[in-house]
Amino acid sequence: MDQIHYRPIGVVHSPYKDTTGVPIQPRAAQGIKGTVEVFDDFREGLADLDGFSHIILVYHLHLSQGYALQVIPFLDNQLRGLFATRAPRRPNPIGLSVVALDRIEGSILHIEGVDIVDGTPLLDIKPYVPEFDRKIDIRTGWLTDKSRHTKDRLSDDRFRK
Amino acid sequence: MDQIHYRPIGVVHSPYKDTTGVPIQPRAAQGIKGTVEVFDDFREGLADLDGFSHIILVYHLHLSQGYALQVIPFLDNQLRGLFATRAPRRPNPIGLSVVALDRIEGSILHIEGVDIVDGTPLLDIKPYVPEFDRKIDIRTGWLTDKSRHTKDRLSDDRFRK
Repeated sequence: MDQIHYRPIGVVHSPYKDTTGVPIQPRAAQGIKGTVEVFDDFREGLADLDGFSHIILVYHLHLSQGYALQVIPFLDNQLRGLFATRAPRRPNPIGLSVVALDRIEGSILHIEGVDIVDGTPLLDIKPYVPEFDRKIDIRTGWLTDKSRHTKDRLSDDRFRK
Repeated sequence: MDQIHYRPIGVVHSPYKDTTGVPIQPRAAQGIKGTVEVFDDFREGLADLDGFSHIILVYHLHLSQGYALQVIPFLDNQLRGLFATRAPRRPNPIGLSVVALDRIEGSILHIEGVDIVDGTPLLDIKPYVPEFDRKIDIRTGWLTDKSRHTKDRLSDDRFRK
């Protein structure tokens, strides 16, 4: 299996038209609202989703080109292994965000906590379930004492090629 | 952007050779150990990852064929909208698991809490960071009172086509 083919099931709309100036992770995007437009072919799959307060968006980082295996992340000033970061230029540029689901109108999801660039192709939606997704007794390596600083920063152009 | 192309960066090894009898979500797989083999081309990106106790594996559900927009999930007995479930037959069959990272030996990650079938192609590795990924004040819709029952169940053949 050398090549894996996916196609968008929808598109994310947000106030961010470019990759710079975007909040770093949803926690830094509290109050930032956006929408997810799910294409009609997939609308039936949205049933029951309105019972969930949070959803996991899986999306294609479409503005990301190429990748580097060592990067200086937004929250640091030294090189780190790419897979120990959430930097966007990855071998497979897949983005993940856990966002709040405010309401659903037809095939439009109104979401909050949006750290995603406008026009981003959506690949999947999954319900956020604490019993599945939430872990305790966590160590976070180089991000210890740094991850809480997301609110002071926005993305810059370091990952633009 | 109609077609998105990804390629495996590695492969997951686990005790589960088939899609039936697999734990439902990592929480039900406590103590189940496996490995992630990262291909040599990407090994440099593993630097700094050993500081993290948990990682998010993003993988291609390679045994999943086709999809249905309404499914009866493993933990329920009625039809639910696909995107309100974690069922494997999805338009883009992308799987997510937060697993414990025990140690790294070269390009082999030793992991625990494995709910992934042996031979699954790996797409991405991200550090699990509570400030980014952990949410509170959660509602989980149809899964309320059901999600804790993962330990009593294993996958069956309902999503085999």
